[in-house]
Amino acid sequence: MRKFLLSSCFGALAALATGGANAQDWSKPTGDDANTRYSQLNQITAANVGKLQVAWTFSTGVLRGHEGAPLVIGNVMYVHGPFPNPVYALDLDHDGKILWKYVPKQDPNVIPVMCCDTVNRGVAYGDGKIFLHQADTTLVALDAKTGNVVWSVKNGDPAKGETGTSAPMVIKDKVLVGISGGEFGVRGSVTAYNIKDGKKVWRGYSMGPDSDTLVDPQKTTHLGKPVGADSGTNTWEGDQWKIGGGTTWGWYSYDSDLNLVYYGSGNPSTWNPKQRPGDNRWSMTIWARDADTGVAKWVYQMTPHDEWDFDGVNEMILTDQTINGQARKLLTHFDRNGFGYTLDRTNGELLVAEKYDPKVNWATKVDMDKNSKTYGRPLVVSQYSTDQNGEDHNTKGVCPAALGSKDEQPAAYSPDTQLFYVPTNHVCMDYEPFKVSYTAGQPYVGATLSMYPPPGETNMGNFIAWDGKTGKIVWSDPEQFSVWSGALATAGGIVFYGTLEGYLKAVDAKSGKELFRFKTPSGIIGNVMTYQHGGKQYVAVLSGVGGWAGIGLAAGLTNPTDGLGAVGGYAALSNYTALGGQLTVFALPQ
Amino acid sequence: MRKFLLSSCFGALAALATGGANAQDWSKPTGDDANTRYSQLNQITAANVGKLQVAWTFSTGVLRGHEGAPLVIGNVMYVHGPFPNPVYALDLDHDGKILWKYVPKQDPNVIPVMCCDTVNRGVAYGDGKIFLHQADTTLVALDAKTGNVVWSVKNGDPAKGETGTSAPMVIKDKVLVGISGGEFGVRGSVTAYNIKDGKKVWRGYSMGPDSDTLVDPQKTTHLGKPVGADSGTNTWEGDQWKIGGGTTWGWYSYDSDLNLVYYGSGNPSTWNPKQRPGDNRWSMTIWARDADTGVAKWVYQMTPHDEWDFDGVNEMILTDQTINGQARKLLTHFDRNGFGYTLDRTNGELLVAEKYDPKVNWATKVDMDKNSKTYGRPLVVSQYSTDQNGEDHNTKGVCPAALGSKDEQPAAYSPDTQLFYVPTNHVCMDYEPFKVSYTAGQPYVGATLSMYPPPGETNMGNFIAWDGKTGKIVWSDPEQFSVWSGALATAGGIVFYGTLEGYLKAVDAKSGKELFRFKTPSGIIGNVMTYQHGGKQYVAVLSGVGGWAGIGLAAGLTNPTDGLGAVGGYAALSNYTALGGQLTVFALPQ
Repeated sequence: MRKFLLSSCFGALAALATGGANAQDWSKPTGDDANTRYSQLNQITAANVGKLQVAWTFSTGVLRGHEGAPLVIGNVMYVHGPFPNPVYALDLDHDGKILWKYVPKQDPNVIPVMCCDTVNRGVAYGDGKIFLHQADTTLVALDAKTGNVVWSVKNGDPAKGETGTSAPMVIKDKVLVGISGGEFGVRGSVTAYNIKDGKKVWRGYSMGPDSDTLVDPQKTTHLGKPVGADSGTNTWEGDQWKIGGGTTWGWYSYDSDLNLVYYGSGNPSTWNPKQRPGDNRWSMTIWARDADTGVAKWVYQMTPHDEWDFDGVNEMILTDQTINGQARKLLTHFDRNGFGYTLDRTNGELLVAEKYDPKVNWATKVDMDKNSKTYGRPLVVSQYSTDQNGEDHNTKGVCPAALGSKDEQPAAYSPDTQLFYVPTNHVCMDYEPFKVSYTAGQPYVGATLSMYPPPGETNMGNFIAWDGKTGKIVWSDPEQFSVWSGALATAGGIVFYGTLEGYLKAVDAKSGKELFRFKTPSGIIGNVMTYQHGGKQYVAVLSGVGGWAGIGLAAGLTNPTDGLGAVGGYAALSNYTALGGQLTVFALPQ
Repeated sequence: MRKFLLSSCFGALAALATGGANAQDWSKPTGDDANTRYSQLNQITAANVGKLQVAWTFSTGVLRGHEGAPLVIGNVMYVHGPFPNPVYALDLDHDGKILWKYVPKQDPNVIPVMCCDTVNRGVAYGDGKIFLHQADTTLVALDAKTGNVVWSVKNGDPAKGETGTSAPMVIKDKVLVGISGGEFGVRGSVTAYNIKDGKKVWRGYSMGPDSDTLVDPQKTTHLGKPVGADSGTNTWEGDQWKIGGGTTWGWYSYDSDLNLVYYGSGNPSTWNPKQRPGDNRWSMTIWARDADTGVAKWVYQMTPHDEWDFDGVNEMILTDQTINGQARKLLTHFDRNGFGYTLDRTNGELLVAEKYDPKVNWATKVDMDKNSKTYGRPLVVSQYSTDQNGEDHNTKGVCPAALGSKDEQPAAYSPDTQLFYVPTNHVCMDYEPFKVSYTAGQPYVGATLSMYPPPGETNMGNFIAWDGKTGKIVWSDPEQFSVWSGALATAGGIVFYGTLEGYLKAVDAKSGKELFRFKTPSGIIGNVMTYQHGGKQYVAVLSGVGGWAGIGLAAGLTNPTDGLGAVGGYAALSNYTALGGQLTVFALPQ
């Protein structure tokens, strides 16, 4: 009898541990290695999604921003939360009865070192273990059946401003983890740990000597050309690269055929561009690294010498599409800087770079002329150059704002429509850099800013469909606030996303027409996921307003320029929602 | 246009302000003055309740125990929460958009003075104002349209252990409020404030000189006889009455024909009976007071000289039923001591006193012989007498436990079935009194205890139907944990209640058969309510595990005897639910 119960509860775990993911599960925080967030499940369709209802709910026991999404592996759902980062294993056969709960003991002094709320983007699964990346940078491996700690390793040091917010990524026999702290002068890195015992296998920094960045001067390319020696130091003045930012707190993708892992590095530190002359490589960069060695195959820096905090961490979505009659292995990326990029992921060739919000004004375009000296670089508009305007000058009307035309909230891609579904911010800013000195563990921001909707408009967000082959918006649904929830596309011809007011919405994948909405307990900054259990398709999302856009509510800030400028722009959020921390699970009626 | 919007939003407020309550609203925390928690709404029936689904949800932004229920007046819902006691006015025309929010500034030092979680049982409405009884005992009147403070008054002093947890009760031109702190030697009282300006009109203490208790030695009766002079002091040794307990944190009822307000007073202080010889009047007493003057018409002490913390605060339910062919104005009360009492509410005549849990063992019965010297008193079993067993003796196996066969979780009554629906605890205890000295503002408990299900049983609760005319259980639905949620009966022939695991359940009023269940985000200790809006009936309940039964989860306690003995008995709750604070609103599908 006991044996039967175990196999009933954990049968699917064994299947996945041997590599056999299936469409009924949601076994990765990104949905799949390609980061498409597309599900083949098709019980819920454009025709019936209007009848969707709440099946069951679960409170995480924690307030503030709930980013990420639960995992489902077999009959068990794994739910995470923001600091102090509880993890629950819930029994799907019994309305989410708690099989085990893990709550790490963490020093609460890590909270003030977290720039943009106490968020955590979720756990990963592999080798029968659940991997949690704690706020204090501890990476802990939990036995998926019991919640017992199998191993743990400290990835960084909160005393230096290093924190953990990103979801780990399991790739074969390794678990990869990034680091947060770009506003504290942290030097970003990605580290691969052995999935069995937590032993460090490789670490690749975003800047520094080639031995740190795992860049091969001859073989690693940038726009088709070898990067040359010391690219991670010679584009910086002095030792600034040692506190150079380029943190790595976004989503990771993996192409098993190429054995390459893709991710973006964040803003250079400080936000005051005057203090760090040069291109500041390899901040603001798309990385393609060998999964086994960490060595970079290619890089592409989107925003050399950032002047606006256009952090490059957003996800890379891997698709196979045909461009100009040619089948290509593509990588599509919606950058904070407002450009949607499509590259050949085998070699980093730049194919498309277009604005995915027409209000983007800091650059006229990305130079696509391969013969140009500025090939691949954005052509900056002087009026909006905070470097050219200089320290203590308030540069007004820059679009997008620092939190970008999109932040970490991941887009989805449907192979059925060959469209990307992108949750976007529609926000501009005033930005005033100032001189700041570095003290380990202290904020190292060097700019004040305020955010607001584009002049003459009231909607601070849009949910858009994007053609990555041509770089064009296909449809755009306006939203009152930024869409800070990750999207989900399904074979049912629908796309889901959440809103900061707390609505879960489903729209038609082809037209964007709203088909369903439901007011969840709190604002949604989590990512919508779906799974099948007992023959039935479910859709689930975490509510819990917070994150950068919701930091005013989450941290109780009221000064408009607080929260790195977000408080003012999103003040009206308090008319719609309050703090929360809940999972809502939806299904069609019996 | 502005005028139209105002009248659309607040039209019903004006109606109620002039006294015209209607069945579509839920304008009192008790549902009605009689405390029946019965609604005439009948769209949701035994036949269709199985199709009930979640219409919308709202997070209160606060964790820990959520007792009480929201109010609905017209198109506005008023939602409250535990400390720091936020109040939200939600727009029912727009999925609960926040019209206004009020969060009092309170000294968090009040939290350790709250015996049994940071609960608040809800706001009251009258004269265009929302009344909030804060944890720090401040009674604040808010403009129902704007949330602005109209007046506020301090009802007690947390430095002496006085706190506010109970819902205020509006009676005509007064608002009544009780006080908590029986475990801190607080002397209980009820105070009536003028609804217009907060001026104190009268205050009646539970013990003390007749001038304090508002007892008339000649006219106030106990079981038909005048109570005589100084009854509130001469049943105490020395000055013990000054720290005598008898707090008043339960629900209040009102009979407008008799102009009497009814409520119960709590346990005498300390829990060590050896320290307070005598009957300890008028702790553990049902009070009938004139609403205008506060003078007591009659009293009935259920548990003279309490030895088990059988706090008498539970609600009085006023019904008109026929007993032995005679139409009677009745008052029915399910006491913590395990007896269900039915009295004539005009004069306090005792009609029925029977055990509503067959496991109750501390008394054989209540003496119903009017000629007996012990008429109206429980006949205590020596084995379970913690006074007879003495200090530092662990009296084992007392049923019910200190939290009673029922605590504050209110029962409902349906005139259709003439049955009471009672959420009960099915818990026993070991109780060891010890000598304790009094220091103002410090715990003054004087006993340790541990709680557990009755020997040989596993269910710690039952939801029962009770015939108050005969004192018999009609049906009983077992529950794994105490049913700590208030019940709701409706004209649809159904009864609702919540469970500590988080289920909202609907059962057939006649048979108790379960017709519907839904897993809400967190354990339910709130009271189910119903209202009609836009022609449609809704059912709503607050989730948020806590209260005495959930204090282990709520306050993070782990020692089994902590939480006044509750932690051990309810430890398994953590397998089902985590902290929360959410409103879930249900309706039938379109």
